[in-house]
Amino acid sequence: MDSPIDGLIARFARLPGLGPRSARRLVLQLLRQKEKLMLPLAQALSDTAGSITSCSVCRNLDTSDPCGYCRDPHRDPHTICVVEDVADLWAIERCHRYGGVYHVLGGTLSAIDGRGPEALGIDALLERITPGSQEVILALNATVEGQTTAHYITDQLNGRNVRITRLAQGIPIGGELDYLDDGTLGAALLSRQTV
Amino acid sequence: MDSPIDGLIARFARLPGLGPRSARRLVLQLLRQKEKLMLPLAQALSDTAGSITSCSVCRNLDTSDPCGYCRDPHRDPHTICVVEDVADLWAIERCHRYGGVYHVLGGTLSAIDGRGPEALGIDALLERITPGSQEVILALNATVEGQTTAHYITDQLNGRNVRITRLAQGIPIGGELDYLDDGTLGAALLSRQTV
Repeated sequence: MDSPIDGLIARFARLPGLGPRSARRLVLQLLRQKEKLMLPLAQALSDTAGSITSCSVCRNLDTSDPCGYCRDPHRDPHTICVVEDVADLWAIERCHRYGGVYHVLGGTLSAIDGRGPEALGIDALLERITPGSQEVILALNATVEGQTTAHYITDQLNGRNVRITRLAQGIPIGGELDYLDDGTLGAALLSRQTV
Repeated sequence: MDSPIDGLIARFARLPGLGPRSARRLVLQLLRQKEKLMLPLAQALSDTAGSITSCSVCRNLDTSDPCGYCRDPHRDPHTICVVEDVADLWAIERCHRYGGVYHVLGGTLSAIDGRGPEALGIDALLERITPGSQEVILALNATVEGQTTAHYITDQLNGRNVRITRLAQGIPIGGELDYLDDGTLGAALLSRQTV
């Protein structure tokens, strides 16, 4: 049958992490609990879509501009954590160890994809560096693309009176040496710390 | 942060097959493609929720009553396939080997959950058996609950002039004997067919 239900399943099946089978299961659950699940979800989606915007300061996605982090008076505006993606920002927030603000690049430098410094808002980041700025944390992925981008930003920040740091590399918590890749183990050994 | 975005993630995380992590990924993808994904999904959800109904003939969920299968003139109304759930109906439709109509029980008999024959619409099924009826296929799960329910329906249909069948049990297509459970292999052996 080619019904609205099939259309709905097809829409869900296109989302990341879902395939046709899981989309069917999900839609059936929604249909079964129309009042409790389906209508509230539709409402929440349309409300959020209506209010979502990109923060004009840090490029985070939020329902207000400036975003909640940029507006929060308890956050240190002199420490900026640079992340590739909103998902990375969310991940850092989940560890509850950071009290500064963010700058979301929205990707990495890529000649192939034609993504230059402007597309990543690196100019905007540089403009955010004021005489009061203390630290820029480059929390980019430990991939070639992420590290290339980190290098570029480091170059641009050179000469500014601000501390530039990057995330520590080493053994993950609960990690077993035997299962670690050589690169990580090597980095952990080189960056060994006095007990 | 306790924002509408978090609320939306929480709603998705409650759906079957999704957890907090996959819900976050999914919502982020929706936020990124607001116009192309998020708003159409909200619309499709609210449209479908507005029109979904339970078929008064076969208890299938559809956007029309009677449902598409009950209304389809190319389907044989004298063959009724009894399934536990709409998901099972969808599964049978996907194999493209059935041209009759359905009866959706919406569960199995369960004394513990207080689900009796009325809740499963077994009376309604019996009323659908007319002198013209040819076959009732009990396409119930091969579980204890499914088979108990099948037994009960068989008892109720006894004396009616209608053929009662159940799905064949045996080796799944592509199945390897070595990996089959003993029950399935035993059933396949007992129901062996002449080549």
